[in-house]
Parts: sequence; C-alpha cells; structure tokens
Amino acid sequence: MTTSSSRADLPGRPCSIASTLAVVGEKWALLAVREISLGNHRFDAIARNTGAPRDRLAARLRALEDAGVVERRQYSERPPRFEYHLTAAGADLRLVLQALRSWGDRWAVDTPPATFVHGGCDGDVEVVLHCRGCGQHVAPDELRARTSAPGWTRTGPAQA
Amino acid sequence: MTTSSSRADLPGRPCSIASTLAVVGEKWALLAVREISLGNHRFDAIARNTGAPRDRLAARLRALEDAGVVERRQYSERPPRFEYHLTAAGADLRLVLQALRSWGDRWAVDTPPATFVHGGCDGDVEVVLHCRGCGQHVAPDELRARTSAPGWTRTGPAQA
Repeated sequence: MTTSSSRADLPGRPCSIASTLAVVGEKWALLAVREISLGNHRFDAIARNTGAPRDRLAARLRALEDAGVVERRQYSERPPRFEYHLTAAGADLRLVLQALRSWGDRWAVDTPPATFVHGGCDGDVEVVLHCRGCGQHVAPDELRARTSAPGWTRTGPAQA
Repeated sequence: MTTSSSRADLPGRPCSIASTLAVVGEKWALLAVREISLGNHRFDAIARNTGAPRDRLAARLRALEDAGVVERRQYSERPPRFEYHLTAAGADLRLVLQALRSWGDRWAVDTPPATFVHGGCDGDVEVVLHCRGCGQHVAPDELRARTSAPGWTRTGPAQA
C-alpha cells in the first residue's frame, strides 16, 4: 500500500502509530470508515450518520481513497454517482474501531449506544492482546519493545 | 469518568467511537499518551518524541487532564514542575495504541520501527477480538450489533 505520508514526512520518533494517524487520524476519517463498514456506502448516508460537514467529508474520503483505504465504485452513469467501499486495508481498520469502541464504552459514555456480539454464539466480544507464542492473553504492561529503527529507544529518537 | 464531551455535543449517530475520538481524536493526543505509556513523563520529552508544537501539546495535555486520561504530579516545588502520568482510563488506551500500531505495521510503513513482544515468552503479540461466550477469536465480519440507543440502526439515526 502506498500512503500519502511516508515516514520521512512525520516529526517525532519513527512509529507505526504515528504513520497510522497520518492516514486516519483526521477527524471524520475513522467515522467515515465506521459507516462504510456498517454498510452505508453512499455519501449522503455517511454525511448524515457521522454529522461531518459535507465539504470536509468529501476531502477526507478523497484522502482515504488516495491512501488506499477506501475505493469508489460507480453505480450510476447518468448522472455519474459513486459508492464508497473498504479496501483490504480499510477492512483491517475494523479492529481499530472496535478498540476505540471498547474504550469509549468503558470511559466515554454512560450507556453504550451499541454493543457488538459474536454472531455465532451471542457472546460478548472483547479486544485483547494475544500471544502467538504461548497462546495467552497479554496485558499491555507485559509487552516488551523490540526495535529496528535506528535510534528508536524507549525514551525516544537519538538526541540531536 | 467525566469527559468534556457529552453525547449531546456530538453530531451523527450515538456511538462510543465518536465519544472516544472526542476525547483522544485530536492530533497529538494519542501520541502524547504513547509517550507517557513508554515512560516519558516530562513535557520536554513528550514534545521531542512526538514532534508536536509545544503550544498545541500543552493545550492537548490540559484537555486530556480535564477528560481524566492523564494526571499531573508535581516533582519540583521551586520552580513548580509537573510530570504527566496515565490514569486508569489512560492506561486502558494502550490497547487502542496497539491496534493502531498493528494496522500501521501492516499498511502504513515499510518496516515496523518497533514491534512489541510478550515479555514472558518473547512471542509475537497480535490484537484480536475474543468471544467471552465461546472463547474463540472472532473476525470483524462475524460481529452482530445489539443496540440500546433510541434510533440506532445499522443505517443510522432515525431519519428527520
């Protein structure tokens, strides 16, 4: 995938989080992805359900298309009209959305407006860190950084 | 937790994702939380490692403090100086950060600058959806919405 922001454009430490936020960190971007993932593919529905100003939403969808997160598909020739769909990269953002939802359910709302259950068994679903090595769930403070970028240390990039 | 944004302030559908982004969606907020979670508690280190302009970072840390995500602790009386620490709500954001990192590792960078392994066994760690009912990992398209907010449907709030 080619994103509009290469690492060299970003200030601060080299970091995938920063690179991700360069793509989807602008207000409305993740909410637009939320709507498309819920099956709302048309501009009017995305605008209504996010509450985004139409001009800013249009700019945001163009940027997401440039970044390879959404793609436009024409559904009408006269007049030319398009629907927005998630690419594989966009579909992968659903996990980010669930992590944001999970945090918000606990810390940012009184009553969760919508919860998501496992369609197979109706069980509650949680976002967890899973270790591929031992198969256990891992708490965030059990993580250890392994770095590959020059100068990447826990306390930051090499000092100037 | 009291956040500075109640649901009533937000446009669009009622949604914990939107409520979360109202707290941490502004640029630099999550990167500041990243730095604090890495153990960088002082303003200068957070500014250097995020690359955030100092005035915007100061405003963002104040907002995060108001939202109950970070807290200031005084470490010097003369001159008065403070360190930033994560509250329980802030510590919970580490899962959001790992979800963003995981997406970025796959889609937004060529080579992950830092990966995080399970300190116990050195295994690779992934962010997954886990069903509390059946114990299985759940793919995002196996989720089913259960809504509690009036008017919350897959296609959006009640039409005007």
